[in-house]
Amino acid sequence: MSAALSYNFSQEKLAMNVMKSKIDRVAIFGGTHGNESTGVYLIQKFKSFPDRIRRSSFETLTFLANPKAIEARRRYIDLDLNRCFSLRDLENPDLVAYEQLLARSIYRQIKTDRINFLIDLHSTTSNMGLTLLVDNDCPFNLRLAAYLVSRNSEVIILQTEGSQDKNRLRNICDLSLTIEVGGVAQGILDATLFYKTENLILEILDYLEKYNREIEISYPQDLELYSYWQTVNYPRDEEGGVAAMIHPWLQGRDYLPLNEGDPLFIRFDGTEIFYQGQNTVYPVFINESAYWEKNIAMSLTQKKKVSIESLD
Amino acid sequence: MSAALSYNFSQEKLAMNVMKSKIDRVAIFGGTHGNESTGVYLIQKFKSFPDRIRRSSFETLTFLANPKAIEARRRYIDLDLNRCFSLRDLENPDLVAYEQLLARSIYRQIKTDRINFLIDLHSTTSNMGLTLLVDNDCPFNLRLAAYLVSRNSEVIILQTEGSQDKNRLRNICDLSLTIEVGGVAQGILDATLFYKTENLILEILDYLEKYNREIEISYPQDLELYSYWQTVNYPRDEEGGVAAMIHPWLQGRDYLPLNEGDPLFIRFDGTEIFYQGQNTVYPVFINESAYWEKNIAMSLTQKKKVSIESLD
Repeated sequence: MSAALSYNFSQEKLAMNVMKSKIDRVAIFGGTHGNESTGVYLIQKFKSFPDRIRRSSFETLTFLANPKAIEARRRYIDLDLNRCFSLRDLENPDLVAYEQLLARSIYRQIKTDRINFLIDLHSTTSNMGLTLLVDNDCPFNLRLAAYLVSRNSEVIILQTEGSQDKNRLRNICDLSLTIEVGGVAQGILDATLFYKTENLILEILDYLEKYNREIEISYPQDLELYSYWQTVNYPRDEEGGVAAMIHPWLQGRDYLPLNEGDPLFIRFDGTEIFYQGQNTVYPVFINESAYWEKNIAMSLTQKKKVSIESLD
Repeated sequence: MSAALSYNFSQEKLAMNVMKSKIDRVAIFGGTHGNESTGVYLIQKFKSFPDRIRRSSFETLTFLANPKAIEARRRYIDLDLNRCFSLRDLENPDLVAYEQLLARSIYRQIKTDRINFLIDLHSTTSNMGLTLLVDNDCPFNLRLAAYLVSRNSEVIILQTEGSQDKNRLRNICDLSLTIEVGGVAQGILDATLFYKTENLILEILDYLEKYNREIEISYPQDLELYSYWQTVNYPRDEEGGVAAMIHPWLQGRDYLPLNEGDPLFIRFDGTEIFYQGQNTVYPVFINESAYWEKNIAMSLTQKKKVSIESLD
């Protein structure tokens, strides 16, 4: 099996080439988590209405990433697919859980299809609106993000660099984005968010078309984004159980400032826990349902301004 | 196995006796659905702070109904526990799915413990606030409901008589209520709803205490409630897939009037489907996540006024 997995992992080199050349093939993935229905039904819509995602200068392919989990209406079957894409794990033939095999199959397909831009569709129970997750300081992605924000003030950019083990689906493609929309409960469709997500995808495809066809694109000077800083776990009791809830004041306040002394948690007996940090931070993924099993209550970000003009 | 199940199912007779006598033992169940966390954590709170539910005239017992589903953070393991309590199924030893066995065990416990009032704690992704589900026209329950509404105007009474197969956990006890709170995503705690639910439980216990101790209780003349009328399924496409979403206008409008010509669904291509009925109805369980697998988009209710004064 290891022979079959002898791919060329020199992503950085490939990324350099892509930056100078055109985008040939775009992949849109939904259902990487089986209970995040917005992406699942958008992929089905695009299969029914392929003209919506057809552009003249590149090919657009759509995928349902985890069909078994979608069928079961669960995040995953054995383990979180969107933590199975590290190169180390992809190359390890001893890992044979369902999602580990699936990740290897998806990776192979991405390479076979020579995908050079990937969009992964997610949703969250947190009040995160129209979030675009970008992993690094790649100028191509930052310019695209700045363009999208300038076209739609609802779009928020969350930069995750340094926070993760590069084990996400978006990490296996040179250029990629994750769209994370919320708040919406798992397993349902919120029509308003559904259409907003669709429009954001179409804007991205329009951008790629302009880029390929060398149509002049105007960018804002700067891009304001939220940069991952650290994760906050739930307080635990002596037996290891969750000992407090997100404070009512904080519920739904994703991307809003959190300052020293602001309420963070409330214990079951009603006593409060306050934020102790000295700098203003901006929490995200507040009370995300899927993160309870990971004991994560929220992540804290810092606001950052990136100069688009001075990008290489 | 059938010998061990030779219970006396003459619930109506027992109910008559209870009505004339006192409430001796109250059971509170959480986690009948493993991903409805509000009830699960309230039961854990009551185990940590037993004084909150202790009353002088009766004993209060607490139960986590489906520990395996709670552990898995799923609604159920094999099938919906809250559809396993029909007398026919409880008496059928051939039914051996996990939740069918569990239902039989819970039933046995309820009878062994001689529980005569049962509260079952649920939550919903629909915007149903503090809903109290009552199954029938039992004067005891209607008086209690009227009392609770008079104490807290947020409490809404939903009468399900005729809608169901008497297969719910609440159906195995003579006097019982289901508390259904929302909207809250599955698997998380919303602190505001958590405390509101707790206060409602404490109000119910206070009422039972007054009733037992024959303290005079003042009731409103009438009780306004929502009575189940019919279920609305999602429109389906030719392959049997969901063909439309809840219309953005309708999302979150649980208990608000729906009239002929109001928007009901929106298809993925943006075309709308309107309500055709001629009478004003009041939808509930709009876009409830757990009902997607049952193809249920919402239930319609009718508003009804019950005279509390003229109850027997």
